[in-house]
Amino acid sequence: MKVRLKKLTIVAERLLREPLVKLLNAEGATGHTLAAVEGEGSRGIHASDWEGRNIQIETIVSPAAADRILARIADEYLENYAVIAYLCDVDVLRRAKFTKDSPEVDTTES
Amino acid sequence: MKVRLKKLTIVAERLLREPLVKLLNAEGATGHTLAAVEGEGSRGIHASDWEGRNIQIETIVSPAAADRILARIADEYLENYAVIAYLCDVDVLRRAKFTKDSPEVDTTES
Amino acid sequence: MKVRLKKLTIVAERLLREPLVKLLNAEGATGHTLAAVEGEGSRGIHASDWEGRNIQIETIVSPAAADRILARIADEYLENYAVIAYLCDVDVLRRAKFTKDSPEVDTTES
Repeated sequence: MKVRLKKLTIVAERLLREPLVKLLNAEGATGHTLAAVEGEGSRGIHASDWEGRNIQIETIVSPAAADRILARIADEYLENYAVIAYLCDVDVLRRAKFTKDSPEVDTTES
Repeated sequence: MKVRLKKLTIVAERLLREPLVKLLNAEGATGHTLAAVEGEGSRGIHASDWEGRNIQIETIVSPAAADRILARIADEYLENYAVIAYLCDVDVLRRAKFTKDSPEVDTTES
Repeated sequence: MKVRLKKLTIVAERLLREPLVKLLNAEGATGHTLAAVEGEGSRGIHASDWEGRNIQIETIVSPAAADRILARIADEYLENYAVIAYLCDVDVLRRAKFTKDSPEVDTTES
């Protein structure tokens, strides 16, 4: 009934919404949710970027897709934008839509 | 101080808010949070359902309650609605309210 | 590329926003996000506190900071306020900002 996948969460400035969604879709995500959040970051160079409203994007993907997405965010955004990205293990109620590039066999019964 | 439980997240169309909350309560959830999210789903039969605003419901329950809820969502909603549900392990600051049907002994000291 | 840390989520009444953020910062959090959520709690003494809108605060911290924050929430808020707090393991795209008091060596390659 469940399949173990990765939930990828990205918190970023609003202006990154379109390019990040494009990136997710290019790397195999078949859906995502977007929520408005307020954020406050470290007192470093990007502090001002974190005033005001940001977006939180979540998607559920295979471990391989998650790593590809993180690698691209690191390459393309981490240096110049206030962006945070992290993974969490999730057991997803199975349906075909999340598993474009992960075989149905990697299920978990936890 | 902490107890290991399951966080259950459901992303669904707004119209499912009431029946899903009723389902959660019937299966042992003692509380939940609701947030508005925008969603975009796979390019399949339910794509149009994901345009516009959806709800994200989160609740913290015992593993047994989590599995009962997932089974009912699979039976009652998965075929005809755009609904996503997944579990994640959480270590919850202990209080009685989450543990209606989970014994206090399954604590974790992680 | 990734470092294993803790995501701490707190759901609380709006009026706790300022003191909770102050608590997080005092215990080593270098940033957080805030989102508005609706909540409904257990049918106990604090039920009325959960009507209306609440806040959900999330921060990513070291395991040690997470435990200090939980201990302070238990001491200072759990008895008199409707507050929920829980931890979840996350693998964070590495940058210096999250790791004020966690050594860079505790990485994970999961």
